[in-house]
Amino acid sequence: MTTPAETIGIGASSDTAFVEFRHELFAAGLLHPTSVDGVYGKSAAYERIVEGVLASVTRLGVGRFEAVHFPPVLARSTFDRTGYLSSFPDLMGSLHVFEGNDRAHTELVRRYEADGDWSEILKPAEVVVCSAACHALYPLCTGRLPEAGRWFEIQGYCFRHEPSPDPTRMQTFRMHELVCVGDPDMAVTHRDSGLADGLRMLRDLGLEMDAVPANDPFFGRLGTILANTQLEEALKIEGVTPIYPTEKPTAIMSANYAQDHFGSSFSIETASGNVAHSSCVAFGIDRITLALLHAHGLDPYRWPPEVTDRLWR
Amino acid sequence: MTTPAETIGIGASSDTAFVEFRHELFAAGLLHPTSVDGVYGKSAAYERIVEGVLASVTRLGVGRFEAVHFPPVLARSTFDRTGYLSSFPDLMGSLHVFEGNDRAHTELVRRYEADGDWSEILKPAEVVVCSAACHALYPLCTGRLPEAGRWFEIQGYCFRHEPSPDPTRMQTFRMHELVCVGDPDMAVTHRDSGLADGLRMLRDLGLEMDAVPANDPFFGRLGTILANTQLEEALKIEGVTPIYPTEKPTAIMSANYAQDHFGSSFSIETASGNVAHSSCVAFGIDRITLALLHAHGLDPYRWPPEVTDRLWR
Repeated sequence: MTTPAETIGIGASSDTAFVEFRHELFAAGLLHPTSVDGVYGKSAAYERIVEGVLASVTRLGVGRFEAVHFPPVLARSTFDRTGYLSSFPDLMGSLHVFEGNDRAHTELVRRYEADGDWSEILKPAEVVVCSAACHALYPLCTGRLPEAGRWFEIQGYCFRHEPSPDPTRMQTFRMHELVCVGDPDMAVTHRDSGLADGLRMLRDLGLEMDAVPANDPFFGRLGTILANTQLEEALKIEGVTPIYPTEKPTAIMSANYAQDHFGSSFSIETASGNVAHSSCVAFGIDRITLALLHAHGLDPYRWPPEVTDRLWR
Repeated sequence: MTTPAETIGIGASSDTAFVEFRHELFAAGLLHPTSVDGVYGKSAAYERIVEGVLASVTRLGVGRFEAVHFPPVLARSTFDRTGYLSSFPDLMGSLHVFEGNDRAHTELVRRYEADGDWSEILKPAEVVVCSAACHALYPLCTGRLPEAGRWFEIQGYCFRHEPSPDPTRMQTFRMHELVCVGDPDMAVTHRDSGLADGLRMLRDLGLEMDAVPANDPFFGRLGTILANTQLEEALKIEGVTPIYPTEKPTAIMSANYAQDHFGSSFSIETASGNVAHSSCVAFGIDRITLALLHAHGLDPYRWPPEVTDRLWR
């Protein structure tokens, strides 16, 4: 427990801000606690906001984008090709399963209950928990693209292993993305127009938004170099909104130009035979929901009508 | 590949039926394949059916039941208390994460790429993938219940490790449950009335339904005894519908009386101080969606209006 006397300095004070916001969400019945930080039950009112945010993103893509919804697990062979294990090992979740007989099961339960080394009895499954919603998409594009490229609106649960008392840092959360796979021009244009559309949509919902250059949380010493390159080349821009007064504003959307990273890993070619480029505009649905609750109050049925009319039109 | 000449006997012929139905779903663009059996992308039309089925179950619970939505992961400490590792070890998914430094990361990537034993570098996370939607609920009930018991409408993604070409056997799927935690009378009454309500709702959607005594797929030799006891005591009843002509009908809902299993594991007491009993009426949302596609055809926008009027009222 953090006592008031300990709340000196930015770190401690923002820890308190996290904990206070989370406590308010618990008290209002919007989130239900579990024994693990970053894992919550959600109320019907919370999910009603989620529905409105998902529909708002879908409307941005209507007509141009093909919708695909992905499950919370991802083929391990796909995960392997994304390079995620090299860049973000600390965030991933590997799924392990039991394929033994009765005798192995007895040994598994014995070790598990004795807090012994039981996990060596398990085997890596052919799936991992999903690292990013768009990762499942690229294998569907392998081969040659049509002239106009391909445009997708995708949704799914993602997992990031980063237990935290900050309710905006959930271990599993819904990501909704607009993705373009095509030539470099298409990808950059989509990144920029999707960012503009997304910022406008979020401002229309009453959020104070700013766009800032950003980098992914690459792991380790090499990661620092990768992050700097990403910043220098201005590949990633985040849409951020202030939630905690003493902290940097919270990213609730991002627009990312992946260059030929996925085109090359998944053997995707443009109509003219070059390696495809891709970009995605990603919306953190649970973070947007929390930002709306922070901005407009904890009872969505008493939000300003100009917000709810847009959200639940 | 199964050739026509090989399709002799029940097993082979129903394998073909699975594969054919899956192929039709792929061809119609309702499901997208991945490299793993039981893991699919889903189209907007598929998800529109899912929304209608979720809303139909929600309507069964309106007024009496408190809604809680759970994420696809579950606190490991909760999983441990359910007894799932003893009863269904072959279905569970344990999540493992990397918490090492730069040097450990280099070793992880080296072994992973060499197909060596890399999983020992990972550590079990404080979460597993969710085994059943209601498992996350019971810790919220620990302590003494009100006089009337507690009634919940819950939703979430579940994981079962059972890779299969049968599209009705997905590795992750959505489960929607109506749960009662109270005294034995309440639990049994809820199990029976929820079963009747569920069967009526599914028949109203044009599905041919039957109710049959059933058992959970308990593991191993001891499991056979547990399954027989469950059958003898008539604790579990499944709502089944015919999808594959040569196979037993497919279970798309079930009504389960858990007796004091969860009340005892999670220290839940009735108002009068006895160990609480519980029951749940569970709807397999993806299976119901597939059953509707099988019954009414692959284009939901051309289904009979008496079905769509109820589904999307």
